[in-house]
Amino acid sequence: MKMTLMEIAAFIGGTIIGSEDIIISNIRSIEEADKGDLTFIANKKYLKNLKTTKASAILVSPQTTAEGKNLIVVSEPYVALVKLLDLFYPADHGRSGISSDAYIEDGVEVSSKATIFPRAFISKGVKIGKGTVVYPGVFIGKNVSIGENSIIYANVTVHHSCVIGNRVILHSGVIIGADGFGFASPGRQNIKIPQVGFVQIDNDVEIGANTTIDRATLGKTWIQRNVKIDNLVQIAHNVVIGENSVITAQVGISGSTKLGKSVLVGGQAGMVGHISIGDNVMIAAGSGIHRDIKPGEIVGGNPQLPYKEWLQFEACRSKLPEIRATFRDLVKKVDSLEKKFQKKVK
Amino acid sequence: MKMTLMEIAAFIGGTIIGSEDIIISNIRSIEEADKGDLTFIANKKYLKNLKTTKASAILVSPQTTAEGKNLIVVSEPYVALVKLLDLFYPADHGRSGISSDAYIEDGVEVSSKATIFPRAFISKGVKIGKGTVVYPGVFIGKNVSIGENSIIYANVTVHHSCVIGNRVILHSGVIIGADGFGFASPGRQNIKIPQVGFVQIDNDVEIGANTTIDRATLGKTWIQRNVKIDNLVQIAHNVVIGENSVITAQVGISGSTKLGKSVLVGGQAGMVGHISIGDNVMIAAGSGIHRDIKPGEIVGGNPQLPYKEWLQFEACRSKLPEIRATFRDLVKKVDSLEKKFQKKVK
Amino acid sequence: MKMTLMEIAAFIGGTIIGSEDIIISNIRSIEEADKGDLTFIANKKYLKNLKTTKASAILVSPQTTAEGKNLIVVSEPYVALVKLLDLFYPADHGRSGISSDAYIEDGVEVSSKATIFPRAFISKGVKIGKGTVVYPGVFIGKNVSIGENSIIYANVTVHHSCVIGNRVILHSGVIIGADGFGFASPGRQNIKIPQVGFVQIDNDVEIGANTTIDRATLGKTWIQRNVKIDNLVQIAHNVVIGENSVITAQVGISGSTKLGKSVLVGGQAGMVGHISIGDNVMIAAGSGIHRDIKPGEIVGGNPQLPYKEWLQFEACRSKLPEIRATFRDLVKKVDSLEKKFQKKVK
Repeated sequence: MKMTLMEIAAFIGGTIIGSEDIIISNIRSIEEADKGDLTFIANKKYLKNLKTTKASAILVSPQTTAEGKNLIVVSEPYVALVKLLDLFYPADHGRSGISSDAYIEDGVEVSSKATIFPRAFISKGVKIGKGTVVYPGVFIGKNVSIGENSIIYANVTVHHSCVIGNRVILHSGVIIGADGFGFASPGRQNIKIPQVGFVQIDNDVEIGANTTIDRATLGKTWIQRNVKIDNLVQIAHNVVIGENSVITAQVGISGSTKLGKSVLVGGQAGMVGHISIGDNVMIAAGSGIHRDIKPGEIVGGNPQLPYKEWLQFEACRSKLPEIRATFRDLVKKVDSLEKKFQKKVK
Repeated sequence: MKMTLMEIAAFIGGTIIGSEDIIISNIRSIEEADKGDLTFIANKKYLKNLKTTKASAILVSPQTTAEGKNLIVVSEPYVALVKLLDLFYPADHGRSGISSDAYIEDGVEVSSKATIFPRAFISKGVKIGKGTVVYPGVFIGKNVSIGENSIIYANVTVHHSCVIGNRVILHSGVIIGADGFGFASPGRQNIKIPQVGFVQIDNDVEIGANTTIDRATLGKTWIQRNVKIDNLVQIAHNVVIGENSVITAQVGISGSTKLGKSVLVGGQAGMVGHISIGDNVMIAAGSGIHRDIKPGEIVGGNPQLPYKEWLQFEACRSKLPEIRATFRDLVKKVDSLEKKFQKKVK
Repeated sequence: MKMTLMEIAAFIGGTIIGSEDIIISNIRSIEEADKGDLTFIANKKYLKNLKTTKASAILVSPQTTAEGKNLIVVSEPYVALVKLLDLFYPADHGRSGISSDAYIEDGVEVSSKATIFPRAFISKGVKIGKGTVVYPGVFIGKNVSIGENSIIYANVTVHHSCVIGNRVILHSGVIIGADGFGFASPGRQNIKIPQVGFVQIDNDVEIGANTTIDRATLGKTWIQRNVKIDNLVQIAHNVVIGENSVITAQVGISGSTKLGKSVLVGGQAGMVGHISIGDNVMIAAGSGIHRDIKPGEIVGGNPQLPYKEWLQFEACRSKLPEIRATFRDLVKKVDSLEKKFQKKVK
């Protein structure tokens, strides 16, 4: 793919500072970019590379300047970058149609416009919509429904009765609908509570590699529209995640906890079960959340504190040993002073 | 499935308060239940829903009352629920027998009463007992032994020489018997120490999706009878987990650590290697355990503290900045007071 | 395999204390070893077992003594153990050649000296070198290159365009090259940023079960020579891990973070994105790293502190409630003393 800077600027609605005629063949990061490459500044940390980059042009936000460089200025560089990446590097699954080497049980409804790779396993009662791609090693259990234009990557498992929407992406190793973890009399008899619910994944959800989303005990575990979940995340039975929420890698959410809309959860955070996290909450990486969080709150630490309190605590955490030592001295000093004073008063 | 409340009460040994003749068709959670549904109160948090639920009947523990509602009173609602769920929603793998589309090497002993799905891979020397179900995408390595009535879900891997008991459930993506993580001269040469032991999983163990249990360096990694392990848990080489213990999601247990019986471990907790955790220990979610824990202890925090000390610390953690600020003032005040006093005494 | 102690000592270059003629048939841990077994002391914790072990001989480091026991003394017992384990228990994949039951697309270059198991899936454009073993259930995406003598265990997924070196071990369930987690306008629109880079894994790298290594947004995610990564680790897009580094289980490394050479990371530690960790850094288990770390530093805690400061804080953490209580008393005492003094002075 080759385009002039002018063509690119027209495509993304940007303004050029510099030469319009240079040819762009590739998009590369600011550290790797060379002649013929377009690069971008998406994180202020990389502004320092603006002078030294060898890129032929740089995608920047307004107010960014760089003498002698060719810039395309757009209000949202990341959004423009997305359009260009899709243009330069279109996704290609390399196949279409339903392979005769897939194992497809009787009584399924797979669109003839779906792509089923060899070695996928489709159980009876499954429905798969047009444009959906199912890679090798995928197991789709009985009566699962998958919408249109979804991508189910290699070695994904979707257990029976789960419902997957349109434009959903399940990355490799994802397990949807394994049994929730529920036992009566835990630690003594460990009597398994049958997990007879399902998992519902709404449109435009993306779920990262090796993430596990358990089926509900009863009813459904529910991942709502446009939620994005990273790798190795654990979502327990009956959890609900509200639309547009973003869950970073290795987060764990315990049973029946409900997240509102647009919740942002940092990596490795954990939440106990049966709590409510309000809309627009932000949870710092590594936090442990033990109670309900009100809409819009920002929290950190384990157990959670309001973010500011947590930062203040962390800031003087390393002073505790010094405080403790001086404190003992002070106690003695005051005692001695008191005694002297008592003596004097007498 | 349709049963009268009277039939249900007889089946689980409960007492009815209200009408005996109503028909139950489904079991649902208290929030979702509607006419024709039986629901239950398993967590006190949900007692508030007792008045408003639309369920036709509610399974409750003794002393629970709800005017105008049909109740079945049992001493252990969760245990009764288990029996009813098994009755209303019996497990159904949808197949039986050994599929000719499974890949089975020569020299295996698979019971004719086992179920092997298409696309499972069974290596030579493997033994599989009657009633055991092996789903598609499963890899069973050489000389593995699996007992009776176990379920090996899709895309599980069990490496060579591991021993799996009866009524064991391995959820999808579980890896049993990958190499333990052992290197001589770590960080410099990283010389791999061959991992030549195996994993033994005793009867009635259940292991959650994408959990990994490494083979021993020598000898065995051992998961004892009736242990229940959640998703995405890491069990390192030569770990022993005592019977009835319950390990929640994303826990990590380092090499050669031994857990006693009936140990309860909260989610995302971690344990260093070569330590002993006594019987009946409880470890709070997110804890980091760095030393032996005596039987019956309850611990939390990272590094661990006795649970009460940990709670007390956490409770005044957010006061540290204030203490620090006031402390500096107090030091000055005492100094000034001392000087004045000295002056006066002179 | 049977060898005399003399033969073993000759093979590993050790010195015998005791009888040279005894026959060794197996290598076992010090707790399990019995007559005919060689055992070893690799961790000082186990020195206490030296007297009571039933092993016929013990591999020890210099200066270790045990009356009446047969010892082989070597400068590095772990390295000697590695040689003996390889000798007594040679790895055996049980197959060779390219199975006709593997699914191999047109246009691949697989060495005739590679081993491809049945049910592996090899996409077009793939290159696989001699001596490499690919197990069942493995998916290799388009244009992937794998070097010589590597082992790709069952149910691994390697996505398109990734580059794997020689003598690399990918344990079961590993996912290489799933999309990095990048969205413009997170929590609101969640616009997916196409991930068009790849993953490069250099020679002698070993990666643990169910670990995920995401492809770069642009450019590459790069695991350098001889890095060892444990199970269930998350490596985000564009991360670089320097040679000989050791990453323990359940660690998470966020996007674009760079680790130097010989970095040791303890289990469950997390690192934010876009930071630099210097050569020879050691990070304690469970730490949360929020900033650059200089070469050679040892850090712990969340957020990280220099290791000594962290230990000091942890040591007096449980005293905070007591300090707080006594502190309030002290404030009152000083106030009262001051008042009395003021009165007296008047």
